Amino acid sequence: SNRVPSCESLRTNPFGEDFSMEDLLRSIELRISWYEELLDRAGREGCDLVVLTEDFTRLSLCMTFLDDRSVFRTAVERQTSLVPERLGAVAKKYSMFIVACYYALEGDRIYNVADLFGRRGELVGRYRKVHMPQYELWQVTPGDSFPAFETDIGWVGMLICYDQMWPEAAACCTMNGAQVICHPSAAVLPEYYMRARAKDNQVHYISSTWQNSMIASPKAEILADAGKEDPAIAWADVDLKGATLADEFFYEYLYSSIRDHKERHLKFRRPEAYRVLTEPRPPLADQYPPGGVANAPEAIEEVYRKHKEIQQKLLRGEEVPYHWRW
Amino acid sequence: SNRVPSCESLRTNPFGEDFSMEDLLRSIELRISWYEELLDRAGREGCDLVVLTEDFTRLSLCMTFLDDRSVFRTAVERQTSLVPERLGAVAKKYSMFIVACYYALEGDRIYNVADLFGRRGELVGRYRKVHMPQYELWQVTPGDSFPAFETDIGWVGMLICYDQMWPEAAACCTMNGAQVICHPSAAVLPEYYMRARAKDNQVHYISSTWQNSMIASPKAEILADAGKEDPAIAWADVDLKGATLADEFFYEYLYSSIRDHKERHLKFRRPEAYRVLTEPRPPLADQYPPGGVANAPEAIEEVYRKHKEIQQKLLRGEEVPYHWRW
Repeated sequence: SNRVPSCESLRTNPFGEDFSMEDLLRSIELRISWYEELLDRAGREGCDLVVLTEDFTRLSLCMTFLDDRSVFRTAVERQTSLVPERLGAVAKKYSMFIVACYYALEGDRIYNVADLFGRRGELVGRYRKVHMPQYELWQVTPGDSFPAFETDIGWVGMLICYDQMWPEAAACCTMNGAQVICHPSAAVLPEYYMRARAKDNQVHYISSTWQNSMIASPKAEILADAGKEDPAIAWADVDLKGATLADEFFYEYLYSSIRDHKERHLKFRRPEAYRVLTEPRPPLADQYPPGGVANAPEAIEEVYRKHKEIQQKLLRGEEVPYHWRW
Repeated sequence: SNRVPSCESLRTNPFGEDFSMEDLLRSIELRISWYEELLDRAGREGCDLVVLTEDFTRLSLCMTFLDDRSVFRTAVERQTSLVPERLGAVAKKYSMFIVACYYALEGDRIYNVADLFGRRGELVGRYRKVHMPQYELWQVTPGDSFPAFETDIGWVGMLICYDQMWPEAAACCTMNGAQVICHPSAAVLPEYYMRARAKDNQVHYISSTWQNSMIASPKAEILADAGKEDPAIAWADVDLKGATLADEFFYEYLYSSIRDHKERHLKFRRPEAYRVLTEPRPPLADQYPPGGVANAPEAIEEVYRKHKEIQQKLLRGEEVPYHWRW
């Protein structure tokens, strides 16, 4: 996992008056080059798997610029072919796996994807972000499954940012076979989340975010923490396949006669008792007004107005209530 | 939530040579009386809801004594009528809710139940432990649902001990309406679990265990911690119904236009993407040998032999690899 500086100098802000489409497209290439250097460092260190942050080319600002929606789409179109080409080459050069999270076009639709590139530079698998904050839904289509992909280091699952808020997401990755969950994110992940997700699912959990990055083990240990250094590569030596075996005497081992924690966790599950989790309208819904995500045009308009105001304040260097910078 | 001392003096151990059924039945009554005193303290403090630990009459040792299975059944039969009668009276006296976890007979079956007694001493609802360690399955039938019950303080859900290992359990309680999850337990609950479960589900999470007890808020704060004091009553003043409202400006509020975190968490869920969670045999199962819980007679026999050996060492005051005392 690694982090990157804000690189404000490379950015051109669609909310600003001096926005230039040309500069934006150029900033995508500069971002990729900048990451190539980081990946070179990881590759020379002998890393087998590297996880970049969410939206590593930093198009989020354009995504929320609704005055002209084509700005975002044009930028996404540009990077859809560029990222696999450039990062696939790095993966191949160092014979390592890379998880790259970025917006990509598929036909007419834009997804927030995490691509797993393999040792030969090939695309091993793609995850499409399932849980989206409202602003992302304005222009991006959510995915609908949590695949896991078999590799020579173990089974790899992926989640993106907001997915972390629903423990069902990591559980689905795991039930599909994941031994490691790679989690590119923008938002900071609290340490207790990392520990719980890793322990609950008996997986290694790698979170690579804009502000902190960590690796947690199935024993709920934090194996690596990028701290405040920026940019940083946080890394750990792990055995993804053997990490779930009990190596000490304790009651769960003694009383279950299954030595592998993950196997026990799987075999003691009660899926027939979990059905309410897949109901479109569980009883809890009766406690709230009907309707789903507030995506009526007026609601979007209101949120967008607030968002634009904040972005413009940030551009003028003014204080905002919550310090949120891309 | 509260904790209790081991009260070894009151116990008669079926693994020992001087075991007496009469003493065992008497110890149940002594346990209940002892808890009545604690509940009196809680009642005088004006508590609205009190959560006892798992198996508060401490019959677990008998449950794992397989040489004569009738020992456990006889003890359970005794307390099945005694607990609702005695604790119901306390609930009524102080017009408070009590969650009492104990083994209870229903027809021919023994369940590990958490009973919610109401302000008039009535049984508001019963939860039957769903996830069981293998040794408990020897004599106890698991439940198959995670109900939540409406009360004047809010919706109450319950989990017991081992349930904590599966985040699906707390999520099911929540989807059934729970605003607070009462979790009687024997095993210690790590703090990161408390925080994650409370935050994930936007509930208050009250864990009352034999070794530590805590109350966590939907904001992932630890509101109360019984620490090392024993016995102890850990308590907090909370508003179960209002606790999930956003009271600060931050990005989730800004971008979702739903002020209630729990409502947003509910409405942004993707239940149609979670189906693998309810599959009897998810893809992960292919990574392990077939078969479920190792409950073949020989496996049980082996585990029981180990368990008996440890109990007898403990009775002789010898060291055991993992210090596990009832």
